[in-house]
Amino acid sequence: MVHVVRLVLGDRAPGRAGGHRTAGGGVSTAETRPTWVARAAGSPYDVDNLPYGVFSRRGEQTGVGVRIGDQVLDLAPLAGLDVRPVVAATSLNPLMAAGRDAWDAVRAWVTGLLTDESERARVEPHLLPLGDVDLHMPFAVADYVDFYASLDHASNVGAIFRPDQAPLLPNWRHLPVGYHGRSGTVVPSGTPVVRPCGQRKTPADEAPVFGPSARLDIEAELGFVVGAASAQGDHVPVRGFADHVFGVVGLNDWSARDIQAWEYVPLGPFLGKSFATSISHWVTPLQALDAAWTDLPGQDPAPLPYLAVDGPAGLDIAIEVELNGQVVARPPYSSMYWGPAQMLAHLTVNGASLRTGDLFASGTVSGPERDQRGSFLEMSWGWKEPFAVGDQERTALEDGDEVVLRYTAPGTGGGRIALGEVAGRIEPARPQ
Amino acid sequence: MVHVVRLVLGDRAPGRAGGHRTAGGGVSTAETRPTWVARAAGSPYDVDNLPYGVFSRRGEQTGVGVRIGDQVLDLAPLAGLDVRPVVAATSLNPLMAAGRDAWDAVRAWVTGLLTDESERARVEPHLLPLGDVDLHMPFAVADYVDFYASLDHASNVGAIFRPDQAPLLPNWRHLPVGYHGRSGTVVPSGTPVVRPCGQRKTPADEAPVFGPSARLDIEAELGFVVGAASAQGDHVPVRGFADHVFGVVGLNDWSARDIQAWEYVPLGPFLGKSFATSISHWVTPLQALDAAWTDLPGQDPAPLPYLAVDGPAGLDIAIEVELNGQVVARPPYSSMYWGPAQMLAHLTVNGASLRTGDLFASGTVSGPERDQRGSFLEMSWGWKEPFAVGDQERTALEDGDEVVLRYTAPGTGGGRIALGEVAGRIEPARPQ
Repeated sequence: MVHVVRLVLGDRAPGRAGGHRTAGGGVSTAETRPTWVARAAGSPYDVDNLPYGVFSRRGEQTGVGVRIGDQVLDLAPLAGLDVRPVVAATSLNPLMAAGRDAWDAVRAWVTGLLTDESERARVEPHLLPLGDVDLHMPFAVADYVDFYASLDHASNVGAIFRPDQAPLLPNWRHLPVGYHGRSGTVVPSGTPVVRPCGQRKTPADEAPVFGPSARLDIEAELGFVVGAASAQGDHVPVRGFADHVFGVVGLNDWSARDIQAWEYVPLGPFLGKSFATSISHWVTPLQALDAAWTDLPGQDPAPLPYLAVDGPAGLDIAIEVELNGQVVARPPYSSMYWGPAQMLAHLTVNGASLRTGDLFASGTVSGPERDQRGSFLEMSWGWKEPFAVGDQERTALEDGDEVVLRYTAPGTGGGRIALGEVAGRIEPARPQ
Repeated sequence: MVHVVRLVLGDRAPGRAGGHRTAGGGVSTAETRPTWVARAAGSPYDVDNLPYGVFSRRGEQTGVGVRIGDQVLDLAPLAGLDVRPVVAATSLNPLMAAGRDAWDAVRAWVTGLLTDESERARVEPHLLPLGDVDLHMPFAVADYVDFYASLDHASNVGAIFRPDQAPLLPNWRHLPVGYHGRSGTVVPSGTPVVRPCGQRKTPADEAPVFGPSARLDIEAELGFVVGAASAQGDHVPVRGFADHVFGVVGLNDWSARDIQAWEYVPLGPFLGKSFATSISHWVTPLQALDAAWTDLPGQDPAPLPYLAVDGPAGLDIAIEVELNGQVVARPPYSSMYWGPAQMLAHLTVNGASLRTGDLFASGTVSGPERDQRGSFLEMSWGWKEPFAVGDQERTALEDGDEVVLRYTAPGTGGGRIALGEVAGRIEPARPQ
């Protein structure tokens, strides 16, 4: 598929001819013409953004779409024989599997459709108002790995749970700590989250008790979506990041802290996390983040050579955590200690293969300030200091609470682009 | 698909008419007629076994097969329109997804083919010698979960790694401890295992060092393969086990102990395990284990109600660990503290859904005796007491070592059936 798309589109891709590979590895689209699409120019979904998603209209087939302004471009009817195999699909997986040259070529083709006035008459009938479509899970998740890459988050959690010890464990500054989560319960934004039941035991309890979690929490994260696979036994080095990662999603790693605290030794989180993980409907392609790469805050000690980075390896992405319509935190992704290319290099350094659809997430994004924390556990400092939500106070999530995570980043066009938002409402526990 | 198979086969299934649901939930086939297949009667692959696999012949299409004696029965050419949708496939997933009634019906149909003399002329051309076929990955793995269900293993590991503390952590007797592993690196028996590289740090090291694992190990386990899916938010109770679990596989959870020891706090094993997990080519259907159910050794304290079992909830499966042709250990599965139906009930008690292809494993099977330990870590008691392998001594695995795990269980026909074996040879680390 790579070769089909490359051969036909390679030499007429508008963004490619004049583009250059940036630090992040994408093709700069700074020189792109403005879009002819109404209300899109200057919006957070301008032509320098163009996230991919999967949508359907009532009673009609599911297809791959690109968001532009407040509309969705239906790609399949516009695709020639070269592009059709990767966009006439019910998930992004075929496009993701096609590899980096195909990603560049398809993005250039879509950019051309939306910026070339001569395409307008042909393209406009395939622009659908967002309100007229249903959005679906954008890709089939293969393996899901969650990291723990925020120094502030790891330090806060350590200080809350192990107050009499050093907040960071000895390995933390030497490797991006991570673990596998449950890929079968990754759900798209808007899916209700049923409060999980499970065992918990506080030091005051003589024996564990069973019941609905009383400490339901969020984790505001960024997820990275693998497109191009790798072979078992091979290692993807730091510099291979943009050859394998197709794009990013917003991600909320819902966490039942009471279940997690009781179960997690010695093999890590399991049922405290596996009931649901929400991701955005929109996958922002890596090329749209070309202007967002920034230096990591600094790593001390210097990491081992397989984790060494050269140049900007962090991402300047701003996150807003909204609870019941109120912004309660603004975690800055730029504060993350470990960069995504380091996470990928670590994940594969033992020869673990990548598959199309692998999803790896950053772990909770927390900055150094109190209003930059990405979990309620931290915002309420171990449930002891309630935080204000309008005229209410909260520690853990209550039934009916709705959380929305929003993400923005500098776009290549000079403004800010929006990444897909992640919404979820808590439903009461089900009777067992 | 369930309905198709059920309607057509339901009333002429030989094992079903006179069969009864056993403690394990299958249909007894004790009254089955002997097979007409040469060399099969009385063998460990007699007609009370009939494991499923996926095979191909040189240059020919991959298909679903059943092992009988030393041959493979090619199912697709024999299947009528009712069964064809689930056996004319390149993996067992369609059959697994079809549900328990379909599993019973297909097994009854195959049993009939192999025991009814009047079928012989039609069936015999589709029996292929094992030596003439290649065996493949039998199913596509969805999520892979590994438990830690052996009291002896958990106690041994605790005593080796935390000699100054109680060997069992406080949660261990209250819940089956488990975690998610990497499903993308589950490989079929015979796949070479490349020695993984990674970080390790002993207390003597000032900083972590990078290199090939020096403590490569096995974990002899049993894997349970989920066929029928469940919905997110639902719980599969202990009594729902046989409605969801299609069968079992042999499983070797290769482990790099030095990588694992440095990385595993606080989020559990990651790169120390994710490089490879081997499973058998053959999936033994749950019905073939009807005579293998046995009482658990005893649980103290009594588990919470959602984990309570009523009747035999353990499995009398004998395991042999063979290293370079020598049997070095015989772990008894009957010694496991937590039963598989308890593991499944725990896995889903928080509403985590099941998908066709989910694989959950027991964790290392170790019995109370030294020669019953299922890992080299335990057999060499923390690498300090080498064990004999013929005229050699071993602690951790060396390049070129070959490990074969073999499994047998009481069959419903009165003899012992063999489960699929799991073989793997260690290849040297690749230069980075």
